[in-house]
Amino acid sequence: MIVVLKPGLSDEDVHKVVERIESLGLKAHISVGKERTIVGAIGDERLLADQTLESFPGVEKVLPILKPYKLVSREFQKEDTVIAVNRHEIGGKRVHVMAGPCSVESREQVQETALSVKEAGATFLRGGAFKPRTSPYAFQGLGEEGLNYLAHAREVTGLAVITEVLDPRDLELVYRYTDILQIGARNMQNFKLLTEVGKLDKPVMLKRGMSATIQEFLLSAEYIAAAGNRKIILCERGIRTYETETRNTVDLSAVPLLKQLTHLPVFVDPSHGTGRWDLVTPMALAGIAAGADGLLIEVHPHPELALSDGPQSLKPKKFAALMAQLKKVAVAIGREL
Amino acid sequence: MIVVLKPGLSDEDVHKVVERIESLGLKAHISVGKERTIVGAIGDERLLADQTLESFPGVEKVLPILKPYKLVSREFQKEDTVIAVNRHEIGGKRVHVMAGPCSVESREQVQETALSVKEAGATFLRGGAFKPRTSPYAFQGLGEEGLNYLAHAREVTGLAVITEVLDPRDLELVYRYTDILQIGARNMQNFKLLTEVGKLDKPVMLKRGMSATIQEFLLSAEYIAAAGNRKIILCERGIRTYETETRNTVDLSAVPLLKQLTHLPVFVDPSHGTGRWDLVTPMALAGIAAGADGLLIEVHPHPELALSDGPQSLKPKKFAALMAQLKKVAVAIGREL
Amino acid sequence: MIVVLKPGLSDEDVHKVVERIESLGLKAHISVGKERTIVGAIGDERLLADQTLESFPGVEKVLPILKPYKLVSREFQKEDTVIAVNRHEIGGKRVHVMAGPCSVESREQVQETALSVKEAGATFLRGGAFKPRTSPYAFQGLGEEGLNYLAHAREVTGLAVITEVLDPRDLELVYRYTDILQIGARNMQNFKLLTEVGKLDKPVMLKRGMSATIQEFLLSAEYIAAAGNRKIILCERGIRTYETETRNTVDLSAVPLLKQLTHLPVFVDPSHGTGRWDLVTPMALAGIAAGADGLLIEVHPHPELALSDGPQSLKPKKFAALMAQLKKVAVAIGREL
Amino acid sequence: MIVVLKPGLSDEDVHKVVERIESLGLKAHISVGKERTIVGAIGDERLLADQTLESFPGVEKVLPILKPYKLVSREFQKEDTVIAVNRHEIGGKRVHVMAGPCSVESREQVQETALSVKEAGATFLRGGAFKPRTSPYAFQGLGEEGLNYLAHAREVTGLAVITEVLDPRDLELVYRYTDILQIGARNMQNFKLLTEVGKLDKPVMLKRGMSATIQEFLLSAEYIAAAGNRKIILCERGIRTYETETRNTVDLSAVPLLKQLTHLPVFVDPSHGTGRWDLVTPMALAGIAAGADGLLIEVHPHPELALSDGPQSLKPKKFAALMAQLKKVAVAIGREL
Repeated sequence: MIVVLKPGLSDEDVHKVVERIESLGLKAHISVGKERTIVGAIGDERLLADQTLESFPGVEKVLPILKPYKLVSREFQKEDTVIAVNRHEIGGKRVHVMAGPCSVESREQVQETALSVKEAGATFLRGGAFKPRTSPYAFQGLGEEGLNYLAHAREVTGLAVITEVLDPRDLELVYRYTDILQIGARNMQNFKLLTEVGKLDKPVMLKRGMSATIQEFLLSAEYIAAAGNRKIILCERGIRTYETETRNTVDLSAVPLLKQLTHLPVFVDPSHGTGRWDLVTPMALAGIAAGADGLLIEVHPHPELALSDGPQSLKPKKFAALMAQLKKVAVAIGREL
Repeated sequence: MIVVLKPGLSDEDVHKVVERIESLGLKAHISVGKERTIVGAIGDERLLADQTLESFPGVEKVLPILKPYKLVSREFQKEDTVIAVNRHEIGGKRVHVMAGPCSVESREQVQETALSVKEAGATFLRGGAFKPRTSPYAFQGLGEEGLNYLAHAREVTGLAVITEVLDPRDLELVYRYTDILQIGARNMQNFKLLTEVGKLDKPVMLKRGMSATIQEFLLSAEYIAAAGNRKIILCERGIRTYETETRNTVDLSAVPLLKQLTHLPVFVDPSHGTGRWDLVTPMALAGIAAGADGLLIEVHPHPELALSDGPQSLKPKKFAALMAQLKKVAVAIGREL
Repeated sequence: MIVVLKPGLSDEDVHKVVERIESLGLKAHISVGKERTIVGAIGDERLLADQTLESFPGVEKVLPILKPYKLVSREFQKEDTVIAVNRHEIGGKRVHVMAGPCSVESREQVQETALSVKEAGATFLRGGAFKPRTSPYAFQGLGEEGLNYLAHAREVTGLAVITEVLDPRDLELVYRYTDILQIGARNMQNFKLLTEVGKLDKPVMLKRGMSATIQEFLLSAEYIAAAGNRKIILCERGIRTYETETRNTVDLSAVPLLKQLTHLPVFVDPSHGTGRWDLVTPMALAGIAAGADGLLIEVHPHPELALSDGPQSLKPKKFAALMAQLKKVAVAIGREL
Repeated sequence: MIVVLKPGLSDEDVHKVVERIESLGLKAHISVGKERTIVGAIGDERLLADQTLESFPGVEKVLPILKPYKLVSREFQKEDTVIAVNRHEIGGKRVHVMAGPCSVESREQVQETALSVKEAGATFLRGGAFKPRTSPYAFQGLGEEGLNYLAHAREVTGLAVITEVLDPRDLELVYRYTDILQIGARNMQNFKLLTEVGKLDKPVMLKRGMSATIQEFLLSAEYIAAAGNRKIILCERGIRTYETETRNTVDLSAVPLLKQLTHLPVFVDPSHGTGRWDLVTPMALAGIAAGADGLLIEVHPHPELALSDGPQSLKPKKFAALMAQLKKVAVAIGREL
């Protein structure tokens, strides 16, 4: 950590900063420049997560040198994390597509969708039983009934299931039904929930918050890892920008960037990312071309009747066409589907 | 709601849209323009929170006419909501300042701060016992011990207390200790938590999410109101923008805008909003000048030793100076402090 | 255009709005709803670019139905615009890569780069002689001397040249030397400059402004088209968001979206878009997978000595590797390179 | 400047970085930490505006210590810059309000507005003769005819005039008619135009670009100062965020922040900042409370007929009421109007 001091500080003031740094267990190293004196704080600056130095008298700014996350960083573990679920490996050579409706609405809807996405090559079934909705008057999900429909579709198709958990109080219930626990964008900084899923032994897909920086995203993953669970999948799902033509702006550069910074698998959700079914296919292809380990795609047999997110759902036929194209792009960059 | 149809639709297709609108309980009204046909859907469009029309075949876009929130809207209730807490009225002529440390750290720290902010004119004591921290390695708050220190300071000073609740499982505990329940920015869309505080009879301060639109902010307030609790205080605390010199960008225009759209009291938190103590005073004055009903300000006797948010905390002396200036500005715009 | 009236308006007030709409040459169509009265304004609403209706008494809001641009819209021209330059066709089946240094620095640097990018398969040479730099103390480009070096490299390699023009006063000069005129992101709303290049007969590449919406981007293209020049290439080069790990956030969904809304060719600049050479290759592949007609890529033989944008420049060898991968992705989605 | 090296670098590699730093005229200072080696580059790092070190092999990142601007910085000049125009002093104790229509539309409109704003206490008349408009089909201003109307109104009222210049080719013309030259937000990084107004002897008001950081804003001011003109007024006019209820988001914290970083006067434009006349008054009061030296406010006798920006224009009567309130707030914070 580099501590830049304000100009014109007395030796005594500089000494106090040095003292404070050393009291925190770091070694201080003074360097006097022409316009500023800077103090290097040598040691594990992650211990200073509270960064109290910035408000120390005489300090102009504090520049961290190291990343504030550790367990999830590429420096901590050089090899890619590969997560085994239901005979599949996530984060390996093969790209995985998790598909299904936004909300679980009925036994038939889920089963019909599951059969069609399986036939097209998807390896996981997605579907929400607990839905975080902006409006209190919108459909909030079927709850346990929905989880039952997912379980039924899993039995019928053999697809593994991924579904969202919103509340620590529902965790035990959702855990019983799902293969992967999904933490949605709105809960990326629900630290209590992160800590709870961190105590479990099932994989967790963590979606990037709507305005989360890459660093905050990785710190949230670090919460899960620090609690004990290293089976974490990251998912870029679009960030909030000033652009209104799309629901969010998919930050695809986050994919290669995350692959550099962390050893965890990285997915892309082009459905939430764009909010428009007619942009899902090109952004799915682009996501894989950018290096993503998989995709989360919303498919609904009748989008015009969907209880949520109809405008961004593909019909099964379009989804099958997407999968055919995706296979070619995956092969072109040396992967498989 | 206005439904804009794609160009070149057949009469049959138009009819299907009309049918769908009417099946949802609204009246359809067709208007054929030169380049587009539009269908007005007349009735309570709030029933259509799920907005399935956008993915209906032939529909180009759907333009809502009414606001999606109701109970919190100025149209629903013309008069300002005034909330009585601890002999004080929030939302009336008098401006209230809630001050105290970011985190509760010790009995002495809280008591010392409480005494000084009371003397300067604050009417509420703020302080966090449960802290949402970006890093798992940062100080997470003292929990119930911290709540005890707040209770002690309340006893000593007579100040009412406001503190944050993060987890539905802690709600009962926090409820026992606090006068106002605070929902932090990261939990603005923790809909389960909103519903739970909506069932209680104590006032709730809802902070705007880091990238929440005004509409989303009011819909989150609507969650609380719809669950039964109308004692809601809104708090603008800065939004995330590209600017990095400040921690967030305080959106002060949200204050007069919210006062138009809703009958609820509106506060400003210039401490989190700017992240810099040297900007707190001007932004506090500006907040009141813009029409806010009160302020949330971080005060710490020793910011350089604070376990969180030291850089944005005022020392008691600076806080007292701020209160003196604030009084003059409040009077200048016809209010009091 | 839909004009939503405030609640509780008298018939007379409604009549005044109708009168105003009709005085502007549109037909008014009143529809009385339960909570709001709306007036449809039928006719070419593009004539109302000044949108004075929003400030008319009694008007709550104005919702446009049609896009405000015309000549560049897909509705105006269904077929893709294909632009012929120097034996090449931009916007056809073949994907084009324009490569070269950010700044022209010397005759040797440009020639060396031109030879290497040509060998790797680039069809255009890019390079800036007039540089818009954030700091007045940064290198501002070689001016006409730089244009001469570009001309020399064109002679040697046969590559066509694209270079930026900053000032209407330099237009004649730059026109003499270049095959494509580039309008940079900072000048996307320099409307005088747009109008001037609109009067010329050479193709113009228009880069998206740092915080321009898709609609503003297309309106700027419309300025060029309205002045007479239809040979316009659009270029997505990253937008400004809160994320700081990358210089900008490449909005790749803009590519398929623009291909829907307009008939113009769409390029991507992953070098400026990310600001990091180590992200250029994945984002270049993703750009083509998303449907871009070409790429703009910065290549420098010695990035560590570059006078601008070194951190985002590829070395010739890396660029050649990128081109090999790009070819495979292009073929995978049915195009060629 | 602090140069952070990648882990695991050989001594030879470190030596090369040191060599490079010294070849640029700075002194290098190595500090070996536990996980990273850092090199301090001591000297005037502003000379390195091109920052080529970031792409040097082995360099992980470069952290600047000093601000990249100089002449406009508070460190360079401690005392406030006070600019004398037309018997007035801008940047002194007195707050100035510049008011008038967005566009100059007719001799009568300008004169009527000028008389009314003067009576209400404005000291400058604003009005655009050259208008930067998003759409090519919108009213582009009256040009020289408009300048004539401004000159006429100045003669009649004695108010000084501020008007925008868009194009270096119009500079001589605009210079003859105006007292203050305005550079609009869209031209904040039109560096050629900045350099040209930097050669003149009349004050320049520089508006912040729609997505400009505070640092970029000050670097643009530095362009003007470096060309010789130190009479610069900065104007915050709202930045682009995700919020759509307002046209822009006024960043009022920029006011006290700029007053810290620079000695230049700082204004606020609540009209463009909010885009809504009903938010102009509270944001004007808040701007002055935050420490602004003045305001730019749009006033139009008939906003509903305005050719541009009607929705954000105040009628003369509302403007007079604003001025009365403003006076009280100015006095409350120790200034005058």
